[in-house]
Amino acid sequence: MKPSIPQVSAPSDELIEKMNAWWRAANYLNIGQIYLKANPLVKEPLTVDHIKPRLLGHWGTSPGLNLVYVHLNRLIKQYGLDVVYMAGPGHGGPALVANVYLEGSYTEFFPEITRDEAGLLKLFRQFSTPGGIPSHVSATTPGSIHEGGELGYVLVHAFGAVMDNPELIVAAVVGDGEAETGPLEGSWKGIRFINPERDGAVLPILHLNGYKISGPTVWGRESDENIARFLEGHGYEPHFVEGDDPAAVHRDFAVCLETAILKIQAIQKEARENGFTTRPVWPAIVLRTPKGWTGPKVVDGLPVEGTFRAHQVPLSTVRENPTHLKMLEEWLHSYRPEELFDENGTFRADLYALAPAGDHRMGANPHANGGKLTIPLDLPDFSDYAVPVPSPAKERIESTRELGKFLRDLYKRNPHNFRLFCPDETNSNRLGAVFEVTDRCFVSPLIAIDDHVSHTGRVMEVLSEHNCHGWLEGYNLTGRHGLFATYEAFAMVADSMSMQHAKWLEHCRHIPWRKPVPSLNYLLTSTCWRNDHNGFSHQGPGFIDNLINKRPEVARVYLPPDANCLLSVADHCFRSTNYLNAIVIDKQPQLQYLTMEQARAHCARGADIWTWCSNCPPDEEPDIVLACAGDIATQETVAAAWLLRQHLPSVRVRVVNIVDLMALPPRDKHPHGMDHTDFVRLFTEKGHVIFAFHGFPGVVHQLIHGRPDQDRFHVRGYIEEGTTTTPFDMVVLNKMSRIHLCQDVIRHVPRLAGEETRLLQATEDLLQKHRRYVREHFEDLPEIADWVWTD
Amino acid sequence: MKPSIPQVSAPSDELIEKMNAWWRAANYLNIGQIYLKANPLVKEPLTVDHIKPRLLGHWGTSPGLNLVYVHLNRLIKQYGLDVVYMAGPGHGGPALVANVYLEGSYTEFFPEITRDEAGLLKLFRQFSTPGGIPSHVSATTPGSIHEGGELGYVLVHAFGAVMDNPELIVAAVVGDGEAETGPLEGSWKGIRFINPERDGAVLPILHLNGYKISGPTVWGRESDENIARFLEGHGYEPHFVEGDDPAAVHRDFAVCLETAILKIQAIQKEARENGFTTRPVWPAIVLRTPKGWTGPKVVDGLPVEGTFRAHQVPLSTVRENPTHLKMLEEWLHSYRPEELFDENGTFRADLYALAPAGDHRMGANPHANGGKLTIPLDLPDFSDYAVPVPSPAKERIESTRELGKFLRDLYKRNPHNFRLFCPDETNSNRLGAVFEVTDRCFVSPLIAIDDHVSHTGRVMEVLSEHNCHGWLEGYNLTGRHGLFATYEAFAMVADSMSMQHAKWLEHCRHIPWRKPVPSLNYLLTSTCWRNDHNGFSHQGPGFIDNLINKRPEVARVYLPPDANCLLSVADHCFRSTNYLNAIVIDKQPQLQYLTMEQARAHCARGADIWTWCSNCPPDEEPDIVLACAGDIATQETVAAAWLLRQHLPSVRVRVVNIVDLMALPPRDKHPHGMDHTDFVRLFTEKGHVIFAFHGFPGVVHQLIHGRPDQDRFHVRGYIEEGTTTTPFDMVVLNKMSRIHLCQDVIRHVPRLAGEETRLLQATEDLLQKHRRYVREHFEDLPEIADWVWTD
Repeated sequence: MKPSIPQVSAPSDELIEKMNAWWRAANYLNIGQIYLKANPLVKEPLTVDHIKPRLLGHWGTSPGLNLVYVHLNRLIKQYGLDVVYMAGPGHGGPALVANVYLEGSYTEFFPEITRDEAGLLKLFRQFSTPGGIPSHVSATTPGSIHEGGELGYVLVHAFGAVMDNPELIVAAVVGDGEAETGPLEGSWKGIRFINPERDGAVLPILHLNGYKISGPTVWGRESDENIARFLEGHGYEPHFVEGDDPAAVHRDFAVCLETAILKIQAIQKEARENGFTTRPVWPAIVLRTPKGWTGPKVVDGLPVEGTFRAHQVPLSTVRENPTHLKMLEEWLHSYRPEELFDENGTFRADLYALAPAGDHRMGANPHANGGKLTIPLDLPDFSDYAVPVPSPAKERIESTRELGKFLRDLYKRNPHNFRLFCPDETNSNRLGAVFEVTDRCFVSPLIAIDDHVSHTGRVMEVLSEHNCHGWLEGYNLTGRHGLFATYEAFAMVADSMSMQHAKWLEHCRHIPWRKPVPSLNYLLTSTCWRNDHNGFSHQGPGFIDNLINKRPEVARVYLPPDANCLLSVADHCFRSTNYLNAIVIDKQPQLQYLTMEQARAHCARGADIWTWCSNCPPDEEPDIVLACAGDIATQETVAAAWLLRQHLPSVRVRVVNIVDLMALPPRDKHPHGMDHTDFVRLFTEKGHVIFAFHGFPGVVHQLIHGRPDQDRFHVRGYIEEGTTTTPFDMVVLNKMSRIHLCQDVIRHVPRLAGEETRLLQATEDLLQKHRRYVREHFEDLPEIADWVWTD
Repeated sequence: MKPSIPQVSAPSDELIEKMNAWWRAANYLNIGQIYLKANPLVKEPLTVDHIKPRLLGHWGTSPGLNLVYVHLNRLIKQYGLDVVYMAGPGHGGPALVANVYLEGSYTEFFPEITRDEAGLLKLFRQFSTPGGIPSHVSATTPGSIHEGGELGYVLVHAFGAVMDNPELIVAAVVGDGEAETGPLEGSWKGIRFINPERDGAVLPILHLNGYKISGPTVWGRESDENIARFLEGHGYEPHFVEGDDPAAVHRDFAVCLETAILKIQAIQKEARENGFTTRPVWPAIVLRTPKGWTGPKVVDGLPVEGTFRAHQVPLSTVRENPTHLKMLEEWLHSYRPEELFDENGTFRADLYALAPAGDHRMGANPHANGGKLTIPLDLPDFSDYAVPVPSPAKERIESTRELGKFLRDLYKRNPHNFRLFCPDETNSNRLGAVFEVTDRCFVSPLIAIDDHVSHTGRVMEVLSEHNCHGWLEGYNLTGRHGLFATYEAFAMVADSMSMQHAKWLEHCRHIPWRKPVPSLNYLLTSTCWRNDHNGFSHQGPGFIDNLINKRPEVARVYLPPDANCLLSVADHCFRSTNYLNAIVIDKQPQLQYLTMEQARAHCARGADIWTWCSNCPPDEEPDIVLACAGDIATQETVAAAWLLRQHLPSVRVRVVNIVDLMALPPRDKHPHGMDHTDFVRLFTEKGHVIFAFHGFPGVVHQLIHGRPDQDRFHVRGYIEEGTTTTPFDMVVLNKMSRIHLCQDVIRHVPRLAGEETRLLQATEDLLQKHRRYVREHFEDLPEIADWVWTD
């Protein structure tokens, strides 16, 4: 669908002239931020005393970012648009800051950065200065939800932001360096998941300036013809603008951008008035301008403008080299700041008038401070989904299937601000109940045999953890709610995205005007212990390790052992803000332990003694503590406790289950940390603890640092052993089976010392028997696999 | 450049018939592996007793993989080609195993899997069976270097494999599920780095069967026109084959594949005879066939062949459902096994003759067992690059610049089997000396202002950690050497790739016929401590956490504190095989501590006492141990020791430096672990240890688990604090500064208890003074930043 739109003509020369003046001002402010600590309007001859001691920042991409900004301003005003600007090359931070300052929103967020010479100076001095603002687009930059520090995510963030935001347009500038990354290349496909009836639009602006830090860029060196084919292949209609003459580029870009906006509006009008038919061909812009455009052309005989040498600070030795200082002075004067700022240093009123007003200013757009727009989820009562548990560890059900029912009703009650993101595993992960009320979203041709696929579905399935994670980030940061459900091992594909999102949230927490946004919720399922059919590559719990490094104020890890705990934890996560919540639980039928009432209390405490499978009253000192965190770890622990009751009834065993992993560290390390009294109540002061853990044992070792006498904690967990095998063989291979746990008990309960050899031999025989059986019969020895529940 | 080639005609009907018979056999073996534990040739009526108890495997993709195999065989024979087959959809493991068995190479690697009925049965029984072979393509699959378990990497592995392998063709099957991942989408660009004069060729075969696990695929639903544009935009000439009639598809695919091979040969001939001119337009194939082709068409009234229901086991309840069992029997008989295998169960000789001979068989290709072809690097003597260190901690140099010189000469001596891979940061990381002997490789148009860029360069710069990592994996696994140099924080982009590569190596170590391959070496530079100009997003040492979870037999982490240690460590890593070696060191000017002789001894030990900055003879008990690992950690520790000597000379301080992080865990946890005596010699038995660590403190806490009395270790490290600021402010923000280390000493040396309050106040005043200074002056207080070396 390519709707026809009227021919667009260029703005008047007068308007172009004014826009160019804004652009000059933005470029000037960029350079000021990089270089100046005094003399902000170069009213005096420039001296070394005016120059910052450390010259930081990236000039190369900035003029292009500035150009796009002022042109968007024109169309926002003209058409009353709602636009968020995302800068892929976020190291052009000073460009965004400059424009947000010029339009006036910056001063509203930071009143000390006044719209006069004193404010200008503060603006310059704070940049890349201790206690000031960072050099990249950051949480401190009004109007942004995207740093662009780690390249690759501008389009996924943009697509996530416009989902269910029908009036929103995200102008997403993709640098040609960023365009080389895998995640970015994998994100062009986003339009195949955007429905113009209900979603907003992303306008990609591929900004080619030809170089990265040192080398040429892949797309920068490609012909227009090949770039056009590439974008057409992805379903876009590309529009090209190229040049280095500002006046000509202003004219061409104005026409191009307006054409693109009109196309977007026509597409949306058509779909909204006549209903969605086929996927539209969305516009995309390719803008080729020189790197470091309007900067020094030649320095010390080497070309700079238009080359990689313009990437960061093109004149880097102005403090030492008087010639360079002179060049900087001329460069600053070349923008004629005296024409742009009045005698007070205030941006000229007629230029300021180019900016839209109020929340239409991109620096003030509420979507970019999503907490302002957040509507808490209308959550069903999770206890309505309770699984009856008449007695613990008897029945097996698929816990995530129960969560699926909860999610189904969550969708029903929140039809426009909740989405599930998943790499094509919703059914596989037993969350299929959601398909009773919605479909997989796919904005491509559909055929009869498709199963719950539609243009209007809100289950976002795409085989890309990068897309899922990034879309959800964009959705969250614009104030909406979601869940990223993934095979546990492949969450690591998005490790670095979670790191960057955590950093953004960590930063936001210290900025008062940033309102809390819904948490990014992960469901890590199809876990390492039960990917026994897929094998070694699908067995990796490392995402937990990644998450516990985040600042305690944002990171949460939950390991519900059963369905009722899962429901309680999920409810908690969906109510929370500004966290990364990882919920780890498998999808296979698993034992159920707690009634809903018990689960609710257990999850509220985070960790507690399970008296029903302990062999020692909770207020008495046990011989040994069996601790567990994670569904399979819990199963093996409960089974080990049962085995011990059968075979060594004199050993006093206490079972402790941990749902909230962050209850383990001391309170001063994490706000969820148990206080010392509680820790000792659970784990005793000095006694041995056999700890079965879902993930790598080192996670527990590092979390309990600071707790009394850590050496007594003996942790079993995933030790990177695996293959395609049986479920019980997996716990045997990783030495976390019930039998291994019993062996640890035998080793660490002093009173068994006399019997140790005999008992260990007996348990070893059991393991051998199992191994023989499994190799001959392709399945687990039934009486071992089911020991605990055949009781 | 599109060379013309002769018109290709289809093979004779007779040959097509034979190839189809091979294909039927391969398909049959697929199903046998999934289902049968007895009656391998269905000579008897099928009963439940013949069926495995757990039905595992992925049928959907397998017929397509089988088709490609037999057609490659024909052309390998006809043209004497050297081909490695990489299966993106590696869950089609039984397909590869089937073909490798049919061609005879499997039996050479696994003599017990004989070419008769008994062998067939073993082949079936071992699949997805405990103690057998995994369900995915794995290290046990002859001819493979690519598992395809975590989707996304088939093309990067393929491109890495053909670099500097001029005669090699990698046929890389890209599934349409995989094609949706970011890393895969980001890897089509590989041809822009392949020079037909010196490199081999990758033939991508985009295999579209329309569905992932449950949902339709992006490319599967796209028009041929859009797919063609997409591939053309990337520089390929796409060839399409589509169908579900085996005979027709055989004919079409035979012509298509032969055309593609002839084009590759023509491209290479042209470039090798007449020299490289412009980037060729390489062929790519798009193959559309039904998912689960030739499998059950309808099951229980629902369509299966050609739908997502064919993804795994299309008849999953044959043990319970007699109708399904009957359908399975019919399905097996539909391939007419009695025509394919003789009375002994041996594959029919005239079909077997379709396979190439010896190492031309894809299962026997030596490139896929790269250790067989590995030539150890001709290493220059690293001590020739020694930095003179007349006295420690006086001079500052950029350590990685010295490594650059070593790498330069490494390139010189090893012109065809060493490459550096880097996301456009070779110069930024101070490794620019390599450009004295080689260039950045870029097979696109070049222009005059490019700096050391050529079609023949061997420095592989692309702004994609996925490409860099994946290419190097492919290069390593085919027996060649390399280094992936990256900004430390962005190594995490490839976290999951490192996990999967580690798993591959872990598996290989237990397969005798897999020869050791060169280690995958990482240089993590531009580290968290000195990305003070780029800020928070560039500050993340989490890759270390990721690596230490790998099995100890493959993971190594080195933190050389200075240039001479770096050279010694690098030399060691380049000599090693089958490891992932991470070397962590910054690029900024940094203090030098050890002479080359000292460095060599220090690195050999992995960790040792530095007497020159200790305040206590090594054989006497210190009041406190100051331990450090990492360049900035070492700098702060050495400075703290100096401060203590100045201000608290009575405190007996021992400084311990750790280069090899894996020296910390007990020997039974890691082969590099120090023995207990050494550990106590360095860290004492009971004394407090103030440990300054490069990364997250939890890393040290988990590594020292099992060492005596871990509670006495007080670890300072990166605690996720950062922004754009000064170098010293970074260590202050993260509480790892020399002053913080002194404060820890004051807290933990009992004899200072009386003075504790006064001393802590004095040090706190110092910190306050620094903070004020840095905010006013944009730089570090000189006398604090340089305290140690202005002595």
